[in-house]
Amino acid sequence: MKIAVCRKSHFNAAHRLYNPKWDDQKNEVVFGKCNNPNFHGHNYKIEVWVRGDVDTDTGMVIDMKILKDIIRREIEDRFDHKNLNLDTEEFKQLIPTAENICLVIWKILRDKIEPQLELKVRLFETERNVVECVSNF
Amino acid sequence: MKIAVCRKSHFNAAHRLYNPKWDDQKNEVVFGKCNNPNFHGHNYKIEVWVRGDVDTDTGMVIDMKILKDIIRREIEDRFDHKNLNLDTEEFKQLIPTAENICLVIWKILRDKIEPQLELKVRLFETERNVVECVSNF
Amino acid sequence: MKIAVCRKSHFNAAHRLYNPKWDDQKNEVVFGKCNNPNFHGHNYKIEVWVRGDVDTDTGMVIDMKILKDIIRREIEDRFDHKNLNLDTEEFKQLIPTAENICLVIWKILRDKIEPQLELKVRLFETERNVVECVSNF
Amino acid sequence: MKIAVCRKSHFNAAHRLYNPKWDDQKNEVVFGKCNNPNFHGHNYKIEVWVRGDVDTDTGMVIDMKILKDIIRREIEDRFDHKNLNLDTEEFKQLIPTAENICLVIWKILRDKIEPQLELKVRLFETERNVVECVSNF
Amino acid sequence: MKIAVCRKSHFNAAHRLYNPKWDDQKNEVVFGKCNNPNFHGHNYKIEVWVRGDVDTDTGMVIDMKILKDIIRREIEDRFDHKNLNLDTEEFKQLIPTAENICLVIWKILRDKIEPQLELKVRLFETERNVVECVSNF
Amino acid sequence: MKIAVCRKSHFNAAHRLYNPKWDDQKNEVVFGKCNNPNFHGHNYKIEVWVRGDVDTDTGMVIDMKILKDIIRREIEDRFDHKNLNLDTEEFKQLIPTAENICLVIWKILRDKIEPQLELKVRLFETERNVVECVSNF
Repeated sequence: MKIAVCRKSHFNAAHRLYNPKWDDQKNEVVFGKCNNPNFHGHNYKIEVWVRGDVDTDTGMVIDMKILKDIIRREIEDRFDHKNLNLDTEEFKQLIPTAENICLVIWKILRDKIEPQLELKVRLFETERNVVECVSNF
Repeated sequence: MKIAVCRKSHFNAAHRLYNPKWDDQKNEVVFGKCNNPNFHGHNYKIEVWVRGDVDTDTGMVIDMKILKDIIRREIEDRFDHKNLNLDTEEFKQLIPTAENICLVIWKILRDKIEPQLELKVRLFETERNVVECVSNF
Repeated sequence: MKIAVCRKSHFNAAHRLYNPKWDDQKNEVVFGKCNNPNFHGHNYKIEVWVRGDVDTDTGMVIDMKILKDIIRREIEDRFDHKNLNLDTEEFKQLIPTAENICLVIWKILRDKIEPQLELKVRLFETERNVVECVSNF
Repeated sequence: MKIAVCRKSHFNAAHRLYNPKWDDQKNEVVFGKCNNPNFHGHNYKIEVWVRGDVDTDTGMVIDMKILKDIIRREIEDRFDHKNLNLDTEEFKQLIPTAENICLVIWKILRDKIEPQLELKVRLFETERNVVECVSNF
Repeated sequence: MKIAVCRKSHFNAAHRLYNPKWDDQKNEVVFGKCNNPNFHGHNYKIEVWVRGDVDTDTGMVIDMKILKDIIRREIEDRFDHKNLNLDTEEFKQLIPTAENICLVIWKILRDKIEPQLELKVRLFETERNVVECVSNF
Repeated sequence: MKIAVCRKSHFNAAHRLYNPKWDDQKNEVVFGKCNNPNFHGHNYKIEVWVRGDVDTDTGMVIDMKILKDIIRREIEDRFDHKNLNLDTEEFKQLIPTAENICLVIWKILRDKIEPQLELKVRLFETERNVVECVSNF
């Protein structure tokens, strides 16, 4: 039987939702107050779920200290106390909706976690808005 | 890859668990103090999960403002500050257990959300009792 | 130095806000949807804070098992799965607002806890509405 | 006996900590990554506590619908989805630390709530950082 | 459609991570401070999810009072206020990692819950570390 | 006006409640299952509140980075993943009840925080049991 383990983390960032292909009016209709040109921000929380077999020697699916370090180096250092639109490569061309942020985090982590382990990422933009990205979980 | 988004909501309602096909003794045995004829109540919380493709122009699975409005109109306005047994059509014949409330909400929302989007509803009757209703998610 | 300890508890109840001295229209204006004649309900949570000196033999302000039993017998058994307006003596004449419920609980517990201990009661009607009752704390 | 009631609310905003009297190095030392010139952001949560006598006719200290409206109009509309440094009058000259934001909110609400009622404001910048502002409570 | 219900519970226990096949140095490298020979401890929380058809007479998947009793008797009485390494049969030979604790709980409950009902167990070792064990859910 | 700021932290530890002046039977009566000679454990959470004037140059009561470092060095490093009875000087002679742990933490921090700042410490042994230690706050 496969077991899933989860590590939680968080980062605080500013962002703005804006599609340069549209005029201001359409951006206002679609994105509302999230379109504020001066940005607003969130305390983003993430859950990183990793599923696989339990190693009989360690009793673990993955060493939590290693997973914690990957998340710190790849996600927290990249996004914490940043302006997602201005300070990151990932969202220079991509609208930083919760869906896209979750997908970007999933792709970054997928490259850093051994391929036989399945991966699910859950992002909380606020307590009321949550997004989940999963492949073959 | 498909992405799931979640919107949380809540409503406060009174209810009573009672099966008219049974005598009082059997109702007492099965439903215990939830059978109080004068009703009791809960702060019900719900999570509505919608899964689908991310629209490349909006960066969204579904416009959260639209989902929020559907939940307010179809669920909050119908059930908030109501007596589920006396004030609603849905539970005139159906016992308002957490399972049935969750199923009713799922069916109401299924009709209002585009069919290519998958739907999951989670209902918290209390912090300790949770129910989840999902089809093809 | 005095130390305060807290025990949390909860009860689920139905209630209605209604002042018999007023006509229906005034009740509607003041209490809004809380005035529904068929009742609605809440998961009430309470925090009972007791402050005093630490006993050097036990290392405790009050034995938590005793405090837990007092709360179960005096509050949970009295109010859990009840209709506050119909099933309790306390709210036959008193409007069961969060303020009054908190005050009633404070008075009940004040009689059961030794007088040299100070008492504070906090009541959560919902996650967003909280009331606190304290005397000489 | 006086009773305190609490209403919770929240707003999502961008900000930057920066003192124009200091050079960049001193700002970096004091404010660290909060000094990012492109801003970062938070989901701010607030608790507004009001203390006074319970009105015997209504069973209330203050009508929660009125308090909710004051908070929406005076705090949420002013700060939600805003850049505190660029979009608000209050923080054009004042560094938007959690302490100062809490103090500004307290002063705004103090003017809108009847003077015989005592006022306490608690601000959560993150789940781990909280500030409280209270006078004569 | 199948419906899942969840009951939450918790137990407080001491444990130590240590593999007797390894020397002290390797145990230190793999398990870090969790290898403290004098033990440390956690407030473990569990979620027990049961999925099946809703009984049309009761409106329930499983009687929550029965599920609550199974969890109290089989899990709480066995593990609460215990030293997992010294006081329990289950972890005399098995390293009490969160993964193994979750798996042991799943196996204990699987024997006590009717086989046509599917079972999922989620264990929170801390708020940040979560494990999930599921078969055919 | 004085402003209070709070920093949250946590540590995971094992402990046992036992008074060597008493025989086993009295220890059992007073401390119940907390008297298990093999220890049990908790995820302890703490809130450290500091109250004082806001510095007009920094907009802060105390630099949160400094407070965070004091808590890490003085509390987390001392108690995290430890057996309070066996591994710490503080509880070699003192029963590690929640009350005493809170008082010990208050005294440790009182020495490290500037005397013009007031100090309050809140300790959560579980979600339901909380203790607060405050002097002149």
